[in-house]
Amino acid sequence: MSSVERTGRVAPREVSLVIRNAAELATPLGNSPRLGAALAQLRVVPDPLLAIDGEQIVAIGPQRELGERFVGRLELDARRGTLVPGFVDAHTHPVFATTREDEFELRTRGASYAEIAAAGGGILSTTRGVRAASQTELEERLSAHLARFVEHGTTTVEAKSGYGLSVDDELKCLRAIAAVRARSELDLAPTFLGAHDYPLEHRADKPAYVRAILDEMLPRVAAEGLAEYCDVFTETIAFSLEDSRRILERARELGLGLRMHVDQLTPLGGAELAAELGAASADHLEHVSERGIERLRESGVVAVLCPVVPLFLRQTVEAPGRKLIDAGVAVAISTDFNPGSCYLPSMPEVCSWAALRYRMSAAECLSAATLNAACSLGRGAELGSLEVGKRADVVVLDAPNHKHLVYELGRNPVRAVVARGRLVRSRG
Amino acid sequence: MSSVERTGRVAPREVSLVIRNAAELATPLGNSPRLGAALAQLRVVPDPLLAIDGEQIVAIGPQRELGERFVGRLELDARRGTLVPGFVDAHTHPVFATTREDEFELRTRGASYAEIAAAGGGILSTTRGVRAASQTELEERLSAHLARFVEHGTTTVEAKSGYGLSVDDELKCLRAIAAVRARSELDLAPTFLGAHDYPLEHRADKPAYVRAILDEMLPRVAAEGLAEYCDVFTETIAFSLEDSRRILERARELGLGLRMHVDQLTPLGGAELAAELGAASADHLEHVSERGIERLRESGVVAVLCPVVPLFLRQTVEAPGRKLIDAGVAVAISTDFNPGSCYLPSMPEVCSWAALRYRMSAAECLSAATLNAACSLGRGAELGSLEVGKRADVVVLDAPNHKHLVYELGRNPVRAVVARGRLVRSRG
Repeated sequence: MSSVERTGRVAPREVSLVIRNAAELATPLGNSPRLGAALAQLRVVPDPLLAIDGEQIVAIGPQRELGERFVGRLELDARRGTLVPGFVDAHTHPVFATTREDEFELRTRGASYAEIAAAGGGILSTTRGVRAASQTELEERLSAHLARFVEHGTTTVEAKSGYGLSVDDELKCLRAIAAVRARSELDLAPTFLGAHDYPLEHRADKPAYVRAILDEMLPRVAAEGLAEYCDVFTETIAFSLEDSRRILERARELGLGLRMHVDQLTPLGGAELAAELGAASADHLEHVSERGIERLRESGVVAVLCPVVPLFLRQTVEAPGRKLIDAGVAVAISTDFNPGSCYLPSMPEVCSWAALRYRMSAAECLSAATLNAACSLGRGAELGSLEVGKRADVVVLDAPNHKHLVYELGRNPVRAVVARGRLVRSRG
Repeated sequence: MSSVERTGRVAPREVSLVIRNAAELATPLGNSPRLGAALAQLRVVPDPLLAIDGEQIVAIGPQRELGERFVGRLELDARRGTLVPGFVDAHTHPVFATTREDEFELRTRGASYAEIAAAGGGILSTTRGVRAASQTELEERLSAHLARFVEHGTTTVEAKSGYGLSVDDELKCLRAIAAVRARSELDLAPTFLGAHDYPLEHRADKPAYVRAILDEMLPRVAAEGLAEYCDVFTETIAFSLEDSRRILERARELGLGLRMHVDQLTPLGGAELAAELGAASADHLEHVSERGIERLRESGVVAVLCPVVPLFLRQTVEAPGRKLIDAGVAVAISTDFNPGSCYLPSMPEVCSWAALRYRMSAAECLSAATLNAACSLGRGAELGSLEVGKRADVVVLDAPNHKHLVYELGRNPVRAVVARGRLVRSRG
């Protein structure tokens, strides 16, 4: 408790961390997804002070009011930078051992998906690497990937399995996530994506692979508590609507939340299924139908868009980001970090491309990259915005205001990162 | 001189800097632009060693052969990274004092060029900031911009004036470049771009501004030795072909090399004029004609492409990069760093987008971002490739091979930078 000193001044409260001398603090507000016009509504505090005690934010306000009321055991000088919530990347595939730069080159020469697969590329090339790797090796690679995420300001990462594609290899991937999660400074949300593709040994008998997911993988994933979510790649070249439904209904019975890759390459109707099943998220949506948009809006499923993926794959059809927002769908944005279709760890870069491709404002990008993404991961009440009582996940941008988050391209604007109240990255 | 020791071994030669333990060295070769299929031909040395003495490269070869023949007063461990030439950014506008993030937001809402100008945006908004700034302030901003370039591996920067648009303010910009150049670790190539736009006070009498360029600015720029090149923005909304010709012919008489902004917004025929005048470079080229391509090929003018600019401006027409290369035109790539149409300092990011938008291979991007760009600046014999006798401008990429230069997006892959033989940047 504060004590009044003889001067009449209140003695400052000692807390674990105080961030001073920022030019601006910008954040969405609330615990639920920001919809429609509200996506662009931020709280913007000029010349702010942010005080943290332990893992929580305890005060936010103008520095001139709060400056003498708090003293930090650690004091961080934001040097006229901008404070925003830690980014939440709601769609990543970070458990892999090998990269696919040769496949990127093949696409340069115009190779098709089928030609790339024939040349040994595609998801199954990553599966070979994952199967050959030990769990320890996968943990090392995952940790290296997470280091790149946090360097760019991401403090919560959804992490999918999905390159193992056998009972043992999928479990190995999820155990690698669990092991890294236990020692990571980041918040990881593990997702089981056994239904990412059919492994080579099941190409001739796809129903047998679906049975393996239903009868072996899912029960073991649930029994060992290895995943918060189950995801399915619902697509003509992957899992049918019917198989997707069977897998996701079984996952729901077992207590897992649901995510889906939908309508990425064709308008198959995955968005409608996601809405029907009450999934936490429907991701990609490049080919979503009018009806799919309406069903997403009605159901409150979060649309997780990946603006860089079509650019990386040189595809011309992009998600109707602006239309989804204007229709009242909850929109989040993510990297889709993976070795084949988007080798990109940076949420600030995703914000720029969401602005450029979807005509989203800086404020909309910030809300979609933090609070709405957090909501898609069931974490909207805990994190995703800078508010008293929320978890102290804070990024200091080397930028005079939040609009620079989208305006600056090709440069990491992150100067410092605070995760769960601890300063985990800081640079000159 | 080496002395033979009793063991029969040659004592190592002591040099100023040795770079060891790289996974790969990749470089174009030669002193002239790489054309057609040759743009993709690199020298790739696995497990290389690179030795530098003073400002020059003195040895390149397999580490197993050279490892004991050199010892550096400074030894740099490349930690299995990749060595490439320092990047050469052949088109930048780095002399400005204010940013234009609000204009970026306006474009998000669909504002046209005219609406942005009416709202106080466009080149003239930067001119207001430049005119209000002292030379010292401009030097500080320019130095800050250059720090971002070198952080991303650029060691040679073409730097244009062009936001002053009066005799005194253009000279102020060029003097700021000269002052920073004298103390910079980077190699700056100053370009006079008085013909960037018409200032507000000359909008009613454009010929008077052209006369000011011809009779006042150019003679003083030349007399004071403030520029290597003269550039003109040749476009319907800027300088006509006829005025461009008068300005550039006068510049040539005064001993300046010529660069041109051509065919960016309309097919005006700027490429043909650049070829006729024997310009060092013809830049942008989004709307270049078939005849323009043929004339560029015949004349050997370097086409400096800016792949991110149309994306940043949300324009749909992009330069025909693949076609220019296949036609035998010398192609370089650049950032076009400026506050209005491309706030991007990173040549690695430019390489990725050249690969994605022009279907260039990693090798082509590397050659276009180094040797061909150096040739456009008259520096092909001095720098732009890693060869014995060339200037020691070297970048260590945090990547196992040069293909990662294009494959990785949204992350700065630069681990260390050597400029003129000196280690000027290095990070974890």
